[in-house]
Formats: sequence, C-alpha cells, structure tokens
Amino acid sequence: MIKVVLSMLLVLVAVSSTMVKPEKNTPRRGKRVPQTLSRGWGDQLVWAQTYEEALFWSRARRKPLMVIFHLEDCPHSAALKKTFAESNEIQKILDDDFIVLNLMYETTDINLSPDGKYVPRILFVDPSMTVRADIVGPYSNRIYAYEKSDIGTLLSNMEQAKKFVKSEL
Amino acid sequence: MIKVVLSMLLVLVAVSSTMVKPEKNTPRRGKRVPQTLSRGWGDQLVWAQTYEEALFWSRARRKPLMVIFHLEDCPHSAALKKTFAESNEIQKILDDDFIVLNLMYETTDINLSPDGKYVPRILFVDPSMTVRADIVGPYSNRIYAYEKSDIGTLLSNMEQAKKFVKSEL
Repeated sequence: MIKVVLSMLLVLVAVSSTMVKPEKNTPRRGKRVPQTLSRGWGDQLVWAQTYEEALFWSRARRKPLMVIFHLEDCPHSAALKKTFAESNEIQKILDDDFIVLNLMYETTDINLSPDGKYVPRILFVDPSMTVRADIVGPYSNRIYAYEKSDIGTLLSNMEQAKKFVKSEL
Repeated sequence: MIKVVLSMLLVLVAVSSTMVKPEKNTPRRGKRVPQTLSRGWGDQLVWAQTYEEALFWSRARRKPLMVIFHLEDCPHSAALKKTFAESNEIQKILDDDFIVLNLMYETTDINLSPDGKYVPRILFVDPSMTVRADIVGPYSNRIYAYEKSDIGTLLSNMEQAKKFVKSEL
C-alpha cells in the first residue's frame, strides 16, 4: 500500500510540475513574453521608464540617477550588461542609493550626449537635475563608455555620483 | 485507508501549490517581480518604452501611435485598463496597426496635454508626428478621457486614427 501511495504522490508531483512550467514564461493573454523594463540589467532593481520619471524620482528621493544607453544587438552593450547584472556589489549599491534608467533610444535632451550619441554609455545625473558630465569612464575618445573590464572604474564613479554637486538639496 | 491517501494527497496539493507560488513570481536574481512595459494594458503587445522611441517606430513603420496616460492607483485607469486588455478587438487592431505607449509620468511635450494633464487619457499621434487633437472621447470637460463603457468610442477613434492626416507619407 505504501508503494501505491508513493507512486500516486510521484505522479501528482510530476503532473503539478508539468502544469506549472508554461505559466512561468507565458503571459495570460497571447504568446509573447512580456517586455521587462530591466532588459537584463538587473531584474530586481526598480527601473524608471522614462527620463522624466527618473528625474522626478531622483529629486523626490534625493538619490543620484544612473542613465544607461545601450542596444540589444551591440556586443559591447551585451558584454557590459552581463558583468553589470552579475556584479552583486553594483546591483546592491544601485538598489540602495540610485535611481536607474536604461534606454535604447536617445532622449531629446542634449545634455545626455555631451560627447555624442553612442552605446554603451553611462551618465550620472544629480538630484538637482545637473548632468554630471565630470564623471567619466577610462576612454579618451568616448568618455562615457565602459567595457566589461571597467566595473571597478564604474563602481568608483558611482561613489563619486553619490557626493552631490549641490549640497543645499 | 482511502481516507488516509486522500488526506495525504490534499496535503501534498496544498504544499506543492504553496511551493510553486514563489517560483512563478520570482526573477532569477533577487526577489522582485520584473516590471513589464505593458503594465497590464496588453501583455502580448510590443510596447514602446518612451515617447521618443514610439515616435521613431511610428515614422519608421508608418503606423499611428496611441499614447495612454494612466496611474496605478487611479480606479478609473484600472477599470479602463481591465476592459481594454480584455477586448480582443482592441488588442488585435493595436497589434496589427498601431505603435503603443503607456505612460505613468508626463512627458515634456506640451502637445500631449492639449486640455491639461489628467488620467486616464488617450491621445493619437500621426506618423507625421502630428498629435491628433481632433480625435476625442465622449466627455466635454476632459476630452481625451475614456471610461470602461467607452470601448466602442475608442474603437471608432482608432479607425479614425488609421486615416492619416498627411497622406503624402
């Protein structure tokens, strides 16, 4: 009898795990996987949708804003994204101290492209809405670009971004 | 004995459904559910992230753009969203013929608030980047507002939006 119970239990476990799988990846209506705002840059972070939204949050919560420009079919963006998402240190600091926004299309604000429009590039914005053009990566031609090996530079730049330009906030 | 088996099965069902719940909602890293761009307005649609992106797609694909302004804690937005997402007719037409964007924060473009900023409101934009201020809902005070009972009006407005203002496109 114990065997019967065990086999019934096994069948039930198998059935329930089979039934659950499609639910995890399939939206309720339709066949496409819903697009996420994180786009792989950190699923557990709370991402702003637009620059306007990000500026609002940055001011309201007195946190600096990190804006990432990237493209899905750019290998440099993809390599940086992987290292970025897998760095617990970066993810933890962003979650605690930053407002985050990732964009695949440029905004109309020219202050977000001080040395041109390219990907990947990362800019910081002060809660006073000042773009921190002084916080740059290690490359002289595209000064807001980072490679996957530049996570250390990015981390120290994040620390710099946390020291606000205008302390009267 | 049958009683024993049944109760064991019941316990297992209860345990497995408890165990399964977190898996469905937990992203690979971290504990939060990844934010989606659809926000419940239609998971199978391809949503633009920003107004700039939406305008780019609208021009490139020669499709009119629908912009929905809403708030998560607004009961009128929630009621409209439910009917909107459950209307196969609306979802099908949007998927085939429109670029879609839903926003919880206002843009800096004043053309998207011809009679003020309120939610829910729906505006259409031509592929020529002209905001179709002529396509209005049934209310005289907030002319771009729709209630959940106004799906018929919305559908006929969508048909109107598909007739471009500038045919030289």
